[in-house]
Amino acid sequence: MNDKKKGLSFEELCTFLQQKGFVYGPEPEIYGGIAGFYTYGPLGKRLKNNVENTIRKVFTKYDFWEVECPTVMPAIVWKASGHLEGFTDPVVICTKCKAQYRADKLIKEKKFKCQNCGTQLPGETRQQNLMMKTTIGTDTESYNRPETATTTYLPFLRYTKHFRDKLPFGIFQIGKAYRNEISPRQFIIRMREFTQAEGQYFINPEDKNNFEQYEKVKNNEYNFYTAKIQEEEKEAEKTTLDKALSKKHIGTKAYAWTLAVAQELFTQMGIPKEKIRFRQHKKDEKAFYASDAWDLEINTNALGWEEFCGIHDRTDYDLKQHEKHSGKELIMNTEKGKVKPHILEIAFGTDRTLYAITDNAYTDDLQRGNKVLKFTPWMAPVQIGVFPLVNKLEEKAEEVYEILKKDFNAVYDRSGSIGRRYARADEQGIPHCITIDFETLDKKDATIRDRDSTEQIRIPLTEINKTIQELTTGQKTWKEVTKGKTVIKQEEKKGSSR
Amino acid sequence: MNDKKKGLSFEELCTFLQQKGFVYGPEPEIYGGIAGFYTYGPLGKRLKNNVENTIRKVFTKYDFWEVECPTVMPAIVWKASGHLEGFTDPVVICTKCKAQYRADKLIKEKKFKCQNCGTQLPGETRQQNLMMKTTIGTDTESYNRPETATTTYLPFLRYTKHFRDKLPFGIFQIGKAYRNEISPRQFIIRMREFTQAEGQYFINPEDKNNFEQYEKVKNNEYNFYTAKIQEEEKEAEKTTLDKALSKKHIGTKAYAWTLAVAQELFTQMGIPKEKIRFRQHKKDEKAFYASDAWDLEINTNALGWEEFCGIHDRTDYDLKQHEKHSGKELIMNTEKGKVKPHILEIAFGTDRTLYAITDNAYTDDLQRGNKVLKFTPWMAPVQIGVFPLVNKLEEKAEEVYEILKKDFNAVYDRSGSIGRRYARADEQGIPHCITIDFETLDKKDATIRDRDSTEQIRIPLTEINKTIQELTTGQKTWKEVTKGKTVIKQEEKKGSSR
Repeated sequence: MNDKKKGLSFEELCTFLQQKGFVYGPEPEIYGGIAGFYTYGPLGKRLKNNVENTIRKVFTKYDFWEVECPTVMPAIVWKASGHLEGFTDPVVICTKCKAQYRADKLIKEKKFKCQNCGTQLPGETRQQNLMMKTTIGTDTESYNRPETATTTYLPFLRYTKHFRDKLPFGIFQIGKAYRNEISPRQFIIRMREFTQAEGQYFINPEDKNNFEQYEKVKNNEYNFYTAKIQEEEKEAEKTTLDKALSKKHIGTKAYAWTLAVAQELFTQMGIPKEKIRFRQHKKDEKAFYASDAWDLEINTNALGWEEFCGIHDRTDYDLKQHEKHSGKELIMNTEKGKVKPHILEIAFGTDRTLYAITDNAYTDDLQRGNKVLKFTPWMAPVQIGVFPLVNKLEEKAEEVYEILKKDFNAVYDRSGSIGRRYARADEQGIPHCITIDFETLDKKDATIRDRDSTEQIRIPLTEINKTIQELTTGQKTWKEVTKGKTVIKQEEKKGSSR
Repeated sequence: MNDKKKGLSFEELCTFLQQKGFVYGPEPEIYGGIAGFYTYGPLGKRLKNNVENTIRKVFTKYDFWEVECPTVMPAIVWKASGHLEGFTDPVVICTKCKAQYRADKLIKEKKFKCQNCGTQLPGETRQQNLMMKTTIGTDTESYNRPETATTTYLPFLRYTKHFRDKLPFGIFQIGKAYRNEISPRQFIIRMREFTQAEGQYFINPEDKNNFEQYEKVKNNEYNFYTAKIQEEEKEAEKTTLDKALSKKHIGTKAYAWTLAVAQELFTQMGIPKEKIRFRQHKKDEKAFYASDAWDLEINTNALGWEEFCGIHDRTDYDLKQHEKHSGKELIMNTEKGKVKPHILEIAFGTDRTLYAITDNAYTDDLQRGNKVLKFTPWMAPVQIGVFPLVNKLEEKAEEVYEILKKDFNAVYDRSGSIGRRYARADEQGIPHCITIDFETLDKKDATIRDRDSTEQIRIPLTEINKTIQELTTGQKTWKEVTKGKTVIKQEEKKGSSR
């Protein structure tokens, strides 16, 4: 019974997320707003924290260590990285009204007149750099970073000390990046200020096919959408990493492993693996530095297949660039001698990821008459709701709430009918709610209600924390919790949540 | 037995933090570095995450909700907030070599000659704005935010919907802010890019002395360093909030409560309450908008008393300013009618807080012959170290490590003598280490060693996770864990950790 549909309206979902306290903007709203800037509201920020903490958990599991680098760096850094020269969009400016357009979009959409005043285009054209320029001190030309990765590479020599000259090692960073898009659209899919997450795995190039961790993942199956399949306009092929490697779709064992890590990041956040595929870069889109290059794509309900993560073998390109521009030798003295490591990169945006999670969770349940955000329990911004059936029961309900609040993100809701409160909880994606009724006072138990099935059981108050713990961490499913108990199915109620 | 001393060298601590992978910089180091920009390395970032998660925990306990707002906003926002006009430093520029100095510092330090070329000062003087200017799109004058608070206020009308027009409510934000200091010094104490944390409590002005939460904290004692005591050059006075209120040191119950929340933030991170005092702003330093205004100060080992947090009753100043500049009415329709709430603010830097934590934890243990970072267990970047006594025992040790790694930030260390590994763990502040020895194979137990006391006991392998859990969360102290067990005191060993 999956009542989610392909063809979910992107606008409907965005409006819903704005109204329910997930994402506000474009900011500053009270001053009219500027495209590409958003605020995460109370629920959205909690969801974003859960996204980022899941990233931390998965990367840490694979021995990556987190760092936090500056977001503003001087021009020399961006000269070395290639952004100062190459990070540009071609812009067409209307000669009459000065409206600006991205030249490639105009050509693609076959629009040759100004959308604003009707003047024939192209007028003036030029390359616009997408970095936000600023100044450090009084005169040091600097930029808000257009990506986090470059700043991650800078302390390379420091990392070699931390890891005591041993390869391989992994570093990751989660932080802000800025792209001065000419006309940002698509809500949190394409922002001017956004959060990037990236893992960088430093490895001796000689060890890329001598890589122990590969053995654990080589028989996992993934959906491969190779360049050849794309040309033939066929469907992605499900196959193991080992087969993909033997067919030479993938160059090395170490790179194959990074694909496994990348997919785990997204499945841990609740994206079903059936909705994920790896798309190989075609020859004409491959960055000049990248050897293996695939995108992780997710089949969203509103936008179809979209890119959500890039996985690249960047070789020693970046270290060489910074070596050239800084004059510092960027090598390691390992047991095997001097090595300039290769870098395998997993890079993605957490805003866009948050979008994918809500797109996957959003369900218009016609039977209930309200929307439901079916988040995986550990991703939900609020884990538990506590409701007194009537106001007389507030004292007991508050007592239960105070205990739950110590261990979980909990909310207390006393306004409106229980049906309305359940609907409100559904819209916030709260996986489970506790209702305190008159029986609670005698029997010391309460009703716990499951968001997805709307089923209810009674559980002793003393077991609530343990049960919620098990459900939230995924140790137990709702089915396992209800086994052998009397299950009541919630009466269907119509009505909005407010 | 406290072997920490007043008079800890600030430079010694900074060098230690750089060498041990806590803080690198100034960045970009390989390009020479620019004052005021730092990278948190593998250990420092974990510590910073623990700082930020503790802030989340404490604010959430008091029902504040987190948001994340943009870090770049257009000029109109900073005009309304007053930063465009008022956020400046007076600068003196040497007429000959163009070196720049902060005028107020020159006067204070009685330096009237250029430190660089000896020319008589002042030469040219001017007001320099401390915001980093940038551009959104092609022509929208914008700034990297100089503080987070202004961006927190902007979605006020959105919050009113989220909280369904009920007062009071709390919002907090943790994020980057930028101050283009003329000559930043003092490591992570005064940075050009830093992280701010602030809680904003929106309250009906009529309810500031009708505030239930106050009752729970009113008898707590705090160190008050009033304006009067400062004038009289006496010591801070320990007194309850209730007495401070009745003596009119503090204006309202709600504001008194924010002092309690502020102190809890820092004590939760391991700063002893004896090292904390509240210093009242003197009349001449009070911001024009602030009614009650105190700083939370910490008595650091290296720098003495320093300001770490500001607690201000900002009244309705900010909402009025944004109302005036945006033309939007910023009020709430509460049950009591239309209200423009007052805002109580708790604002501090997480970098500076991280400094305070390391300053408090850093101990030069002469007996052991190495430095020890005595972090509170839940703040430690790494919670547990696992060591095989000899290489033959690696298999067993790795097995134990893999199990611990699922629940804790763990490290595995196999190089050097056990004494050296303990020393290395001390320097990273790891509270407890497990050593796998030959007895482990027969008896299925291992040695657990306590960082602060260097005491060791043997515990069954099956109890390690539970014991570490209890020690890390503070449920049990080392004394409680060792009760009734045979305690071995570690032999004193000399030698460095590497």
